[in-house]
Amino acid sequence: MVDLTHGVPPQAVRVGALLLREALPYFPPDTVFLAVVDPGVGSERRPVCARSADRLFVGPDNGLLWPGATTAGEPAFFHLDRPEFWLPAPGATFQGRDLFAPVAAALASGVQPEQCGTPVYDPVRLTIPEPRRTERGWAGEVLLIDRYGNAVTNFRPEHLPRPWETRFTAAGKELGRPVTHYAAVAPGEVAVLRGSMGYFEVAANGGSAAKALTLRPGDPIHACDGADDSQN
Amino acid sequence: MVDLTHGVPPQAVRVGALLLREALPYFPPDTVFLAVVDPGVGSERRPVCARSADRLFVGPDNGLLWPGATTAGEPAFFHLDRPEFWLPAPGATFQGRDLFAPVAAALASGVQPEQCGTPVYDPVRLTIPEPRRTERGWAGEVLLIDRYGNAVTNFRPEHLPRPWETRFTAAGKELGRPVTHYAAVAPGEVAVLRGSMGYFEVAANGGSAAKALTLRPGDPIHACDGADDSQN
Amino acid sequence: MVDLTHGVPPQAVRVGALLLREALPYFPPDTVFLAVVDPGVGSERRPVCARSADRLFVGPDNGLLWPGATTAGEPAFFHLDRPEFWLPAPGATFQGRDLFAPVAAALASGVQPEQCGTPVYDPVRLTIPEPRRTERGWAGEVLLIDRYGNAVTNFRPEHLPRPWETRFTAAGKELGRPVTHYAAVAPGEVAVLRGSMGYFEVAANGGSAAKALTLRPGDPIHACDGADDSQN
Repeated sequence: MVDLTHGVPPQAVRVGALLLREALPYFPPDTVFLAVVDPGVGSERRPVCARSADRLFVGPDNGLLWPGATTAGEPAFFHLDRPEFWLPAPGATFQGRDLFAPVAAALASGVQPEQCGTPVYDPVRLTIPEPRRTERGWAGEVLLIDRYGNAVTNFRPEHLPRPWETRFTAAGKELGRPVTHYAAVAPGEVAVLRGSMGYFEVAANGGSAAKALTLRPGDPIHACDGADDSQN
Repeated sequence: MVDLTHGVPPQAVRVGALLLREALPYFPPDTVFLAVVDPGVGSERRPVCARSADRLFVGPDNGLLWPGATTAGEPAFFHLDRPEFWLPAPGATFQGRDLFAPVAAALASGVQPEQCGTPVYDPVRLTIPEPRRTERGWAGEVLLIDRYGNAVTNFRPEHLPRPWETRFTAAGKELGRPVTHYAAVAPGEVAVLRGSMGYFEVAANGGSAAKALTLRPGDPIHACDGADDSQN
Repeated sequence: MVDLTHGVPPQAVRVGALLLREALPYFPPDTVFLAVVDPGVGSERRPVCARSADRLFVGPDNGLLWPGATTAGEPAFFHLDRPEFWLPAPGATFQGRDLFAPVAAALASGVQPEQCGTPVYDPVRLTIPEPRRTERGWAGEVLLIDRYGNAVTNFRPEHLPRPWETRFTAAGKELGRPVTHYAAVAPGEVAVLRGSMGYFEVAANGGSAAKALTLRPGDPIHACDGADDSQN
């Protein structure tokens, strides 16, 4: 058992979905992934299991599992509707303990998804937004703020024709072209660099970029090709 | 070894006692529970072990172990007074590392409480306060604030003749009858529901009820039967 | 695998170095210690491994490993320059995952430091500052603030001729002679006592000394012998 993180902010389904997807390559085949970010717990929101190649996912049907479960082709989803696999629950607010955990344990012990659930064909789909082309460049956004205050954007090198010649703007501040590492700029200075998940991120050397620029998830990020420099 | 939580606020003995008691049913027989919330470390406060049915508890004699150790009948307590089971300690402030952990390890390895301590018959008793009857209903209180900002009260359904017809008031705000899950009310709205420990809790859908109502542990919670509605 | 702490503040190399060194005696021989506090990741800062007696250390060459690696004599350092032991990295910012972790796993599996690195003879040395003699006593400083708000100083009993007769001053406030435990003073009162790492620390009974006195790492701490009391 590996405890991946308890650092997802409350209700931040998209952040959880992203962290789960990015963690997948570091786990062995046949891993059962249990994930819970679950503001709709106890409502009509279904508890589900997803099977994708040799991985199993257990969690709420709110999109949390979707980005990870779809990295290896079309997954099969199952509504976890067999209470004989659950623990007795004092309330309706903690399916992580009372439903998801015992089902994940059963799956890890060899039980098949078909035994503890019923196939469903309309799971909630959550997609990480892609940057889009604009007249003057590309419009992206902040996906998450990490514990260092780095603002991870949704730009990856493959979104841009010449990523290392691209100039970024966040919170009205021109940040220039990406640098290669935090210490490439002066202490406290904000820059863009490629972060650990492959996305470009806005970071401050030795400080918090989110604090310096008051960045929050969802904030717009602008990118434009360094060649068509409108300031010249 | 399972690391249950590091989320108990400093000095919050009652919160730790409650979380420990509620976690018990999810652990196998013969588990040794090591718990430390210990503002009196190094004082005359005794280090103790408690044996209760097939469970062992190790920690400070400040009430922390009491609610858990008494769920399965009268426990036997032992003063941990045999330094040969301890580690050498540089100071007097970290018995968690220097005394409780090595004793818990010894107990988990088959050592008996009688070997590492002396029976005591006056352990500190800590009881979770029960709601009391008032002229106009019941007076309870906030036991703890969880990391989502939910305010867990000391009301359980068995305290109330018709729990689901009971109206709750917190911080001067009438919260109405309990709902079944967070998303049963509008986003940001505050409601009462039955939480994961079986207690009714004050929660905000997608937000922090503690922040919205400025609730803190110990704050009063009022409940009255929905039928004798004084507002009619 | 033991997860020692995620509580080191961002960029606080010296705090990490201190916590690592103090944890060593509690781990068995042949432990591989992986530590990452790494503001210079991706720069010319080298990734290194250190061998010291029967311990191995893996981390950045920024001093983080030095205090721990030198507790058992002169260590041998190796520049981790063999990419065949690394994972493919999407960016240059997460050597903890992409370089240090796979190398530490290889070392734990029996690979020798010589196989995954090249000897280096100029590792970055980081020393925990010692108190120094002044005309009126000794000048020390705050090394770190722990999660309880205790301010750990760099004074140890061996720095002082009569430690328990020494009077301490922090933030302009005379704190008197050391006490033996938190509860030796009134609730909320600030005092000096010997903490869990063997250093004297400034602590508040049931509260945060750092908050009460606005103490931060690096702040000066003054000590003077109780006998040559200049106030008499």
